[in-house]
Amino acid sequence: MSKLFQELFNDNEVFRVYALCTGITVGKILIMSPLTSILRLKNGTFANEEDVKKFSKADKVKFGDESVERVRRAHRNDLENCLPLMTIGFLYVLTEPEPSLAVNVIRAGAAARVIHTIAYLNGWQPLRFLSFLVGGGVTAYMSFKVIMFFK
Amino acid sequence: MSKLFQELFNDNEVFRVYALCTGITVGKILIMSPLTSILRLKNGTFANEEDVKKFSKADKVKFGDESVERVRRAHRNDLENCLPLMTIGFLYVLTEPEPSLAVNVIRAGAAARVIHTIAYLNGWQPLRFLSFLVGGGVTAYMSFKVIMFFK
Amino acid sequence: MSKLFQELFNDNEVFRVYALCTGITVGKILIMSPLTSILRLKNGTFANEEDVKKFSKADKVKFGDESVERVRRAHRNDLENCLPLMTIGFLYVLTEPEPSLAVNVIRAGAAARVIHTIAYLNGWQPLRFLSFLVGGGVTAYMSFKVIMFFK
Repeated sequence: MSKLFQELFNDNEVFRVYALCTGITVGKILIMSPLTSILRLKNGTFANEEDVKKFSKADKVKFGDESVERVRRAHRNDLENCLPLMTIGFLYVLTEPEPSLAVNVIRAGAAARVIHTIAYLNGWQPLRFLSFLVGGGVTAYMSFKVIMFFK
Repeated sequence: MSKLFQELFNDNEVFRVYALCTGITVGKILIMSPLTSILRLKNGTFANEEDVKKFSKADKVKFGDESVERVRRAHRNDLENCLPLMTIGFLYVLTEPEPSLAVNVIRAGAAARVIHTIAYLNGWQPLRFLSFLVGGGVTAYMSFKVIMFFK
Repeated sequence: MSKLFQELFNDNEVFRVYALCTGITVGKILIMSPLTSILRLKNGTFANEEDVKKFSKADKVKFGDESVERVRRAHRNDLENCLPLMTIGFLYVLTEPEPSLAVNVIRAGAAARVIHTIAYLNGWQPLRFLSFLVGGGVTAYMSFKVIMFFK
């Protein structure tokens, strides 16, 4: 590893936690697509005609299957929340926050998003709402810190 | 702050403007979720059964409320446009563009996206269309610059 | 160009390929919006009342036009897949992978996403499914490498 990379990223505990949590979050988002596909196959609910022909015993496209739509809503919620969280997280690391606080803020954000998906798929309220609040709160906190630091 | 971070990011005016604008943009995107929730509560329009039971006087899930759908369309437009803009913006900074031009390009992109949301929520055309064009134009310009620099 | 930027990013072949592929991917995503607008104009299918008044001969909002919805599904698929791919790609570069492998992994991911859009818009199965698999496989591989490196 080059000396510069080493010093900037590898020796930086906050960055390492950020990178690990981002890897886990991206992996989690990735699971949503095959989950949608499996439910589409199981319920014969395809949105494209060519998919109906290839994969389904049904004879036409179908929308609005509840279990498919639930995964899709959870997936969309990920796009709305995980992607901004990971983007602002990187800039938050660059503000060089106090490490013992920062690593826990970052971990809380990632954990909240993993819990959110589990709660959404199982219809667990108010856990889904609480995990959503924590994820949003972490993003808001990081945005505030980034704005204050770079203003 | 470590000397390397200092030199790479903190002393770099273009990066500072990028980070500030990204913080503002992420904060702006973040507002869309509670706005959706408030309108769902107000209009009793929930997409999940467990939400209906917890939060609504209505007795079943409902879709297609116009004010909720408008916020959701504006939110989706943010995902389609703000996230690519912030991603390419970081790489654009790394091409070390002429600072006096670059800071204004970055500011124009962020300002356009803030104006776009306000115009969308209020149904103001052609302001919504114009702000959309500016945001897209900035993203296209940055993509072009990044491709030319790193090709 | 500052010496630090030079050494970190410009002299780094893997980073250069990543930046180029990200520029191309963002450019590709960007095309989806005007494509949607063109089809909306052609088919008179607008989701907002102010748009109907400005741009359409029709007298009310319309949803569910198949050609518009197909572009929108392809666009949403981009958000679900390209954005996580670009985010994790940056962290993957920072793990300093073996260059001759890494540049091809990154190129495969970007190429798969370009092919996916073409296949989706034309309804070409199983090419759409295969390109989706490659894109997802690259993202999964990068996530795994990032998690192993920073854990």
